Amino acid sequence: MDNFIYNLPTKVYFGPDQLQHLGEEAAKYGKNVLFCYGGGSIKKNGLYDKAMASLNEAGLHVTELSGIEPNPKIESVYKGAELCKENHIDCVVAVGGGSVIDCAKIIAAAACVDFDPWEFFSKKTPIEKALPVIDVLTLAATGTEMDDCAVISNPETVDKMGAASPALIPKVSFMDPAVTFSVPAYQTAAGSADILNHIMEDYFAPRPNLFMLDRFMEGLMQTVIRYAPIAMEDPENYEARANLMWASSWAINGFNRGANPKVWSMHPIEHQLTANYGITHGHGLAIVTPRYLQYVRNEKTMPRLVEFGVWVWGIDPALSDDEIVDQAIAKTENFLFDQLKLTDNLKGFGVSEDRFDAMAEKACKKGIIHGFFDLGKEDIKAIYQACMQPHA
Amino acid sequence: MDNFIYNLPTKVYFGPDQLQHLGEEAAKYGKNVLFCYGGGSIKKNGLYDKAMASLNEAGLHVTELSGIEPNPKIESVYKGAELCKENHIDCVVAVGGGSVIDCAKIIAAAACVDFDPWEFFSKKTPIEKALPVIDVLTLAATGTEMDDCAVISNPETVDKMGAASPALIPKVSFMDPAVTFSVPAYQTAAGSADILNHIMEDYFAPRPNLFMLDRFMEGLMQTVIRYAPIAMEDPENYEARANLMWASSWAINGFNRGANPKVWSMHPIEHQLTANYGITHGHGLAIVTPRYLQYVRNEKTMPRLVEFGVWVWGIDPALSDDEIVDQAIAKTENFLFDQLKLTDNLKGFGVSEDRFDAMAEKACKKGIIHGFFDLGKEDIKAIYQACMQPHA
Repeated sequence: MDNFIYNLPTKVYFGPDQLQHLGEEAAKYGKNVLFCYGGGSIKKNGLYDKAMASLNEAGLHVTELSGIEPNPKIESVYKGAELCKENHIDCVVAVGGGSVIDCAKIIAAAACVDFDPWEFFSKKTPIEKALPVIDVLTLAATGTEMDDCAVISNPETVDKMGAASPALIPKVSFMDPAVTFSVPAYQTAAGSADILNHIMEDYFAPRPNLFMLDRFMEGLMQTVIRYAPIAMEDPENYEARANLMWASSWAINGFNRGANPKVWSMHPIEHQLTANYGITHGHGLAIVTPRYLQYVRNEKTMPRLVEFGVWVWGIDPALSDDEIVDQAIAKTENFLFDQLKLTDNLKGFGVSEDRFDAMAEKACKKGIIHGFFDLGKEDIKAIYQACMQPHA
Repeated sequence: MDNFIYNLPTKVYFGPDQLQHLGEEAAKYGKNVLFCYGGGSIKKNGLYDKAMASLNEAGLHVTELSGIEPNPKIESVYKGAELCKENHIDCVVAVGGGSVIDCAKIIAAAACVDFDPWEFFSKKTPIEKALPVIDVLTLAATGTEMDDCAVISNPETVDKMGAASPALIPKVSFMDPAVTFSVPAYQTAAGSADILNHIMEDYFAPRPNLFMLDRFMEGLMQTVIRYAPIAMEDPENYEARANLMWASSWAINGFNRGANPKVWSMHPIEHQLTANYGITHGHGLAIVTPRYLQYVRNEKTMPRLVEFGVWVWGIDPALSDDEIVDQAIAKTENFLFDQLKLTDNLKGFGVSEDRFDAMAEKACKKGIIHGFFDLGKEDIKAIYQACMQPHA
């Protein structure tokens, strides 16, 4: 086991009616705030007014950037960075889901450099610093509210790429599960599939992890499996929304990884689906996940797949390994496609196979994704192909 | 479910050979360091030299305070605070187990006030600020390396009391499981009983907790149950030491509590045992724990005790509630007394019943400890009495 550094300083205000602290938290960094959001939903649900009231009460000067799109584009980053520079912004406040917060994080970094911020992605230029980011989360899904990553799309190059840096970790997150009461069933499902997949990316790691972290990840997966269907059926169930929201942060904030390297296998496969066909990220992951599990099963990966079946799905350990893994994959499919009601294959999205070659090449960056199972271009292509057929 | 604020900014260097970062971390706060430790063991195992080398390399001026005792006394706090004031200390570095770190935390607070720091305990004077504390942990037990508490004894008043404040949370903790290879079996056992009890104090809470946190706490308890005996048998087992060490921090850093109030029931009962008879804290907790579980079982507490039996101990949920709880308590006793080899009753320590009345009165502060089960003086006395008999 290697060393690791645990450093996760995000302060979280969890629960309803805490937004009055937004102003005092933002004021710690200066007078000028960039206020980022997406469409008009935060004006309808009252979040805009509450956040503004708190910022105004703290005497802050607010510049607005609205219209940040789902799967945020680099154009929005350019716009935001310009506003930061023009208005001497001290702190970026993001009110929204993963897209708005991701965009705000990269705006915060772009405000500190003179070059094209797309280079953070295209050239992997390290993000050395960023303006402080404070977010008000409106969707339990990406975990960006407590992690060091952001994903941005570039329509010109048909790319969707991620960047990571400790400088991107939000200083403060406001997480009110009641805000997500209005999240529609489809988005709740896609977000939950995203959370589940984040946990699985770390759970299916190349090396054994700390026992205590394995058990934590299994508990988190069970949390998503238990509460996502409840939140879809009964959207104002606070217990369900609270468990999903807090799980979304702990699924991906780095705690689960322990001393393991960060290896993402399913995410790069999915990113090509969103970039090429605009498929909702979590839904794309739902389609990829069981096909990945099926494709990677071999002698070396079997023990971990069995653990997944026994500890997460409660499958009888007395069964044969093959039976356990068959059942585990079937239960995963049942959860994602039957309980979460997500379309189970790519044909349903009008996808044809003609781009799979190029997509697979991009997903593995013309090399190998070393991880739980080493994935080359042909492996990824085969997984895309398996995603075309309905599940059993 | 109430709101809560999660704010746990401790940076952790986990694993061997990270102590070279001590100097750079301490230097963030200024030039003058108070270096606190206990007996001479850190000189024998090389930690003293490594820590000093890193502090010297960073050009820091170091003042030493050695001889901090187990169950640290307020006298050591007076001494340390004086050294801080005389030497314009900017940062307190503690190398040791819970006692040294607790003492360093209160020294760091005492250095910032002009009154007698015993008032933090006797008068509950709030701790508003403290010098930054950095620790190098040598024993997995109290969790003080990542929490906001410290416990100090006052031999004059026969008191052992705790204080808590966000100002006491260490800035940085160095946690090297290999350092604990030399911890003897008895201390490993007592430390593990302490960790287990910390988790149970939050698990047996007055209100339902978040499902995801329940599952995490059960995973943590299973971690202690699995690895404590391994660490006793095979002291240089890194996997066991690493799981115990990281579990010790997460047992008590506040994450598990969620929106529940902090209620400690078994700790105040035990503190009287240490204060009156010098019983090792974790050993005292081991003796109290199963008697507490037995004493508090009633209709209201039963569902949670059953959950404890099924999820932590894997007891068949088809059994009757009474059978499940009987088995859960028996398994807890077997773990603490047979596997950890801890003496199972107070008579073995020469304790007689004559002080139980006064001890019980002190434990509940002449009132009621409201919690999972409301404990008054007579309840606590009955628990002490049950601790006199060997377990079944």
